[in-house]
Amino acid sequence: MKVSIEGIFPPIATPFEDGMVAHDRLKENLERWNKTQLAGYVIFGSNGESVHLDQEEKLAIVDTVKQHVPQGKLLIAGTGCQSTAATVRLTNLCAERGADAGLVFTPHYYKAKMDTISLKRHYLSIADEAKIPILIYNVPQFTGINVSPGLVAPLAEHPQIIGIKDSSGNIAQVGEMIAATSPSFHVMAGSAGHLLAALALGASGGILALANVAPDECCRIFQDFRRGKHTDARELQLKLLAANKAVTAGFGVAGLKAALDMVGYFGGDPRPPLLPLGEVQRNELREILKRANLI
Amino acid sequence: MKVSIEGIFPPIATPFEDGMVAHDRLKENLERWNKTQLAGYVIFGSNGESVHLDQEEKLAIVDTVKQHVPQGKLLIAGTGCQSTAATVRLTNLCAERGADAGLVFTPHYYKAKMDTISLKRHYLSIADEAKIPILIYNVPQFTGINVSPGLVAPLAEHPQIIGIKDSSGNIAQVGEMIAATSPSFHVMAGSAGHLLAALALGASGGILALANVAPDECCRIFQDFRRGKHTDARELQLKLLAANKAVTAGFGVAGLKAALDMVGYFGGDPRPPLLPLGEVQRNELREILKRANLI
Amino acid sequence: MKVSIEGIFPPIATPFEDGMVAHDRLKENLERWNKTQLAGYVIFGSNGESVHLDQEEKLAIVDTVKQHVPQGKLLIAGTGCQSTAATVRLTNLCAERGADAGLVFTPHYYKAKMDTISLKRHYLSIADEAKIPILIYNVPQFTGINVSPGLVAPLAEHPQIIGIKDSSGNIAQVGEMIAATSPSFHVMAGSAGHLLAALALGASGGILALANVAPDECCRIFQDFRRGKHTDARELQLKLLAANKAVTAGFGVAGLKAALDMVGYFGGDPRPPLLPLGEVQRNELREILKRANLI
Amino acid sequence: MKVSIEGIFPPIATPFEDGMVAHDRLKENLERWNKTQLAGYVIFGSNGESVHLDQEEKLAIVDTVKQHVPQGKLLIAGTGCQSTAATVRLTNLCAERGADAGLVFTPHYYKAKMDTISLKRHYLSIADEAKIPILIYNVPQFTGINVSPGLVAPLAEHPQIIGIKDSSGNIAQVGEMIAATSPSFHVMAGSAGHLLAALALGASGGILALANVAPDECCRIFQDFRRGKHTDARELQLKLLAANKAVTAGFGVAGLKAALDMVGYFGGDPRPPLLPLGEVQRNELREILKRANLI
Repeated sequence: MKVSIEGIFPPIATPFEDGMVAHDRLKENLERWNKTQLAGYVIFGSNGESVHLDQEEKLAIVDTVKQHVPQGKLLIAGTGCQSTAATVRLTNLCAERGADAGLVFTPHYYKAKMDTISLKRHYLSIADEAKIPILIYNVPQFTGINVSPGLVAPLAEHPQIIGIKDSSGNIAQVGEMIAATSPSFHVMAGSAGHLLAALALGASGGILALANVAPDECCRIFQDFRRGKHTDARELQLKLLAANKAVTAGFGVAGLKAALDMVGYFGGDPRPPLLPLGEVQRNELREILKRANLI
Repeated sequence: MKVSIEGIFPPIATPFEDGMVAHDRLKENLERWNKTQLAGYVIFGSNGESVHLDQEEKLAIVDTVKQHVPQGKLLIAGTGCQSTAATVRLTNLCAERGADAGLVFTPHYYKAKMDTISLKRHYLSIADEAKIPILIYNVPQFTGINVSPGLVAPLAEHPQIIGIKDSSGNIAQVGEMIAATSPSFHVMAGSAGHLLAALALGASGGILALANVAPDECCRIFQDFRRGKHTDARELQLKLLAANKAVTAGFGVAGLKAALDMVGYFGGDPRPPLLPLGEVQRNELREILKRANLI
Repeated sequence: MKVSIEGIFPPIATPFEDGMVAHDRLKENLERWNKTQLAGYVIFGSNGESVHLDQEEKLAIVDTVKQHVPQGKLLIAGTGCQSTAATVRLTNLCAERGADAGLVFTPHYYKAKMDTISLKRHYLSIADEAKIPILIYNVPQFTGINVSPGLVAPLAEHPQIIGIKDSSGNIAQVGEMIAATSPSFHVMAGSAGHLLAALALGASGGILALANVAPDECCRIFQDFRRGKHTDARELQLKLLAANKAVTAGFGVAGLKAALDMVGYFGGDPRPPLLPLGEVQRNELREILKRANLI
Repeated sequence: MKVSIEGIFPPIATPFEDGMVAHDRLKENLERWNKTQLAGYVIFGSNGESVHLDQEEKLAIVDTVKQHVPQGKLLIAGTGCQSTAATVRLTNLCAERGADAGLVFTPHYYKAKMDTISLKRHYLSIADEAKIPILIYNVPQFTGINVSPGLVAPLAEHPQIIGIKDSSGNIAQVGEMIAATSPSFHVMAGSAGHLLAALALGASGGILALANVAPDECCRIFQDFRRGKHTDARELQLKLLAANKAVTAGFGVAGLKAALDMVGYFGGDPRPPLLPLGEVQRNELREILKRANLI
């Protein structure tokens, strides 16, 4: 099956109540997101607290989400683990439950040893053995590792490696990846902070934390750009920057969840050791969302 | 139960054959280490490829090791996970199978959010709920996070937080931790590269990758120092530095395992994406071990 | 006098022969650059080896360049020093010799102490005392310090602080700076790698190492973008990425100088400890320039 | 002339009054330090605000200090510049005025290009052309560059490269440098935080910011260690750690100067952009000095 990754995807937050995955809340959120132009969903990204979920919880979430994703929207599952074998296993378990593609972060515990050769073998092994196509997930702020354009180029030739989410924020690198790969390889902005810039260089869309709380606005930047409405796209992009920073680097997952609550979705608290926002932070966040016209 | 952590402990490598945990090889290694002055064993440290093992594998390893640890030697299990709750669960599962203490690395995926408050709550929660005492594991080279002496001081007042393995290599920090805690709190060198220096400042011993392949030599530095044989201790310390570097930062886990093979233990290959040493590296390693009189 | 910084500026390489500043070569280069659409020149940037020049050499260079800059092109001098007082002195010495503006890098030797308060006072003191307007120069890859949008916003209100060259490559930050300042404050791309992206967000132009060797191409991206020829701009931007990387992060100042030689300007060698390219690197660079149609 | 670097040296603070170098204050400080067991003085180190002084000021300081250094104490001048040629010139100007040795930091503006080959040529060129012997100055916290033991080993064979001040705090590296060089090469602790640890591995002494304010205590650690009084040395070392941190990484140069004032020397303010301590910081510093029995 050929999977085409175009448009805007939120890496969705995982709702918890009393410390447990709240499947009802997840459904409610999905039903609302389903009314937008979002191209699909990413589960088990960094914002989905993948590292706070065990395998059983993950598979139950795939089931729930799969039931609520309408035709025409894609389901991408974050399936990266530290070992190659575990990544293959998790990818295929998600595939069996209906995930359309896997998003595979770079293994990173032994970061000094994750050179080009190790990473290349890792991704090629997974691509060979996985039952669904995969996207590379480059997120140096969490992993301490960067996937270089020089590594992406050969990986992109594998038919089962169909794209990359680059959250590095290094826009020249995004351009180099686009220049080094064929148009069928999807380079996706990894943050709303560089969405318009990435589109200007030829990106296919974005997998954006901000799209959890501002799906319509993120989709509008994409559509305005595609329709040549550059000024509109720029104005909206500039307006969203502060809100994007607040729900990513600024306040992190706890901030994203608080923002979800503020805009009418269910957010709730992250799992410890992540701490929920305090009142002062919450007020600051609310002001930022207001200035961005999100509430 | 009061657990006293004194002397030299190897964070033991996990042997694999055909990709599976090789319990027989593990027993053979333990039987040989048991003849040394090692004070006990650490399983599931960074060198034990903790992040490459699933829970079922870990519990089976605890069982195997527990059966082969003689009285008078301690069994410490690396039980750190990214979430607080998962760490408590794993610690208690290991406790039920006989681990004497847990070694808990800092959660680190969301590293920018792991401030003093988050880490303090994390460790205190675990200490409150764990059935065995715990040691803090500070290993910034893998986690990107440093545990400051200012955080260690209050944590050390909890009766179930009995020590720290500091692998940062920052010797002033080791001294500050010793100065800031009571003598019953065990500050352990986290690498043979700073063993003598840490002892000179009052450390209780070391949890040392090098002690896998050079247990007698590591124990001798400890004993020489305690007996006031400073010149002997220094000469041996200087002699071991290159070998220590080779099996840690230099060649990593693959180097430690290759060295185990060279000195007569079972080492084998690490799990991918870690790659085994190539022939050139292997020859270089052999020369380094020879110069250190380890082969 | 109101100075408007729009368009493309090269931070020009300083030519040396027999270890001395080669004023004749500098004139020849300028005469050739003068035939392009470049908006002016930056001397004593990172690529001008500012840190390898003493004050006497710098003032002689200002004199030479001033004589060869035609009306309508600006002369910007890098005048940042580690101390505030030395920066003021150098800025005013350059002003007296005809520089139109100063480009002031962040002091950085005591990087841990360069917090927002220190940097704010530094820039405001200079702006108060300098006889020409200044631009902030943010170049974390050399200084280890980043100038945040939160610091730029208040600085931009000073009438003598007229812009910033942001070489961080963090395009979201470029956008935040644009969003946080008035349209009369000039946010300039600090590298050709993010020129088009910065323009798409509203940047005024770029101060680009690559403009030393590819002035026409860099100007064409700027002009195509301004005229709404987005596809042409993108294609040229993507085509130049590898060449840009080669003359910046890839081969550094030595690479920029070798490239100048290859495209018909005078480049020569950098001052030690920077080393000239070896033959293998030179061949690689030549291939990259060929693929970008620069030779 | 053979220069032997043994014992404790303070990298002295440069006193300013009304923004100018205060030579009288410098003399007063020296007269008091002269009564201690300090082995000599380092001028123009990081704590001497070398980067805030121009050449004329530096040469005047050499003259003043030279007049007040008694026989038997050494005068070492920090002479590192970004270019090789400038370093040679400054070293020889200081030599002509009576400096016994030069302390040469790693050039670091182009840090990505300062590989082993560049640094090796840099130091060898200087050693060949300098009229006095030199010490390498490794201070990654300011330069972003580390001098590896693998680079020190060949440099140490040059008869005019007589030692290294290693401020990295990496004690294993200090040991590797000692193991890799002959006993006539002086490896000096670069911070009081690792003085005892470095001595335990065979260091020749230390060049220590703390020795500005606690010369007797620093000398006592050295002497106690040499006389085999290990417990006394350890107790004093542990007691000084907090004070050392306060006058180095904690409060920086401004903290060192404030501490000088508190213990009866002249400290004064650093040059901007470094800011003097605020009242809260000053009180905190005073408490720390009291707890260390320094006031």
